[in-house]
Amino acid sequence: MSFLEKLTATIARNNSTLCIGLDPTLDTLPEGVERTPEGVLRFNREIIAATADLACAYKPNLAFYEALGIDGWRVLRDTVRAVPAGVPVIADAKRADIGSTAAAYATAIYDVLGCDACTVNPYLGFDAIAPFIARPGSFAFVLCRTSNPGARDLQDVTTGDGLPLYEHVARWVQRQGRPNSCGLVVGATDPAAARRVAAAAPDLWLLAPGLGPQGGDLEGTARALGPSAAHTLWNASRGITGAVRGRDYAAKAREAARLLREQLLAVS
Amino acid sequence: MSFLEKLTATIARNNSTLCIGLDPTLDTLPEGVERTPEGVLRFNREIIAATADLACAYKPNLAFYEALGIDGWRVLRDTVRAVPAGVPVIADAKRADIGSTAAAYATAIYDVLGCDACTVNPYLGFDAIAPFIARPGSFAFVLCRTSNPGARDLQDVTTGDGLPLYEHVARWVQRQGRPNSCGLVVGATDPAAARRVAAAAPDLWLLAPGLGPQGGDLEGTARALGPSAAHTLWNASRGITGAVRGRDYAAKAREAARLLREQLLAVS
Repeated sequence: MSFLEKLTATIARNNSTLCIGLDPTLDTLPEGVERTPEGVLRFNREIIAATADLACAYKPNLAFYEALGIDGWRVLRDTVRAVPAGVPVIADAKRADIGSTAAAYATAIYDVLGCDACTVNPYLGFDAIAPFIARPGSFAFVLCRTSNPGARDLQDVTTGDGLPLYEHVARWVQRQGRPNSCGLVVGATDPAAARRVAAAAPDLWLLAPGLGPQGGDLEGTARALGPSAAHTLWNASRGITGAVRGRDYAAKAREAARLLREQLLAVS
Repeated sequence: MSFLEKLTATIARNNSTLCIGLDPTLDTLPEGVERTPEGVLRFNREIIAATADLACAYKPNLAFYEALGIDGWRVLRDTVRAVPAGVPVIADAKRADIGSTAAAYATAIYDVLGCDACTVNPYLGFDAIAPFIARPGSFAFVLCRTSNPGARDLQDVTTGDGLPLYEHVARWVQRQGRPNSCGLVVGATDPAAARRVAAAAPDLWLLAPGLGPQGGDLEGTARALGPSAAHTLWNASRGITGAVRGRDYAAKAREAARLLREQLLAVS
């Protein structure tokens, strides 16, 4: 089944556009969970089991697994395996490299880890993205306007056509004419930018990170997205898994996910 | 010892500006080497032993290790450990993420793998680069003009100041005023672009990939770089390790490295 088939089926089944980020650090594991790679895996499995009927997708960021040490990739692969078969997994990898190297990254993400989609960086151009969408049903979310303060440094640079670079990227991906395999990442932290992205790329699925500790503005961003809000995933990571304390952490994460799903339903 | 101290000492000791890419694939291992992660490690160790007095640095690209499977990171760490202590290792990772996530990537590259420097992508801005240069002596080569055909898609877009985006990036990194911790990647495949980068960022170390099968133009690029050629590393990967056949592959790789080092000396 393609990523989009899995995604739309899960959105309908769980009545949810909530993507749950799985970005564990040893320091923020709740009490009672061993601060080891094995503890991270146990934590992830319990979070997944407690939220799989509330999420439309999971999104592990590879950085946090690589930082765990040499066993990080094994923890990541086993985390992906713990996600129920129908629920899609987006590898938040932000990769990009020259074509033959990007193909090696695609092998790692799809064949080694078993993910359904990934995030990619546009700076190297389309031949650095193509290998990530070459498998039937695979899908890449291209970074467009990110949720960090430094997004301004390059993404807001005005291009010769008078548009900020991020809007140029949105139009460029829209022009590729591949809405079934390419979407965009646009932070929920800047509604004005989200409005421009949605207008420039009305056909594309959007992935909106930045809710929670990053200070994202859910209502403002949803309003700004207009019709594109109907094909937007909202990611929360630290807001769901990073703040749970105590031995009932899985129940607390479930409650945080349930509340956020309600908020998402209210704006969609 | 900082990356730059290691690098300049090795350049002087080995009279070489040759950076050897370690980008193994199971398909291109020579006959007699087992096509397994363990075989890759053996191959890398022999290549390193045969060339360590001819190179100024090694540059493994993480993609090829991640594609090996769940043991890829172990092979990569053990490859880094096989490099003699004085010779620096650049992780060709092309990473970038929001600050807290970039810090996790830096942990992986410096603490887990033991590399001295890495390549990073500028699209997310400076706060996505900062964690990679936060450790004393660490160093990041920022992608500026890459060696792939798709480099044109975004890197050549004209910005409001009339410059192509890659030149804007070169000036932006130069303006950070951190020549001891930030350099630039500029492909050896486009001398005109290399000329603009060198003029825009005269203080920065450059890493020039693309020699060999990618069709890089060594003499043209070296001429275009002008005074910056004196602080440029030239990378060859497939040209040294990707084409060696037969049981004497290490001797053949040594000979390829020796010849390329001679060519580099002739243009510097």
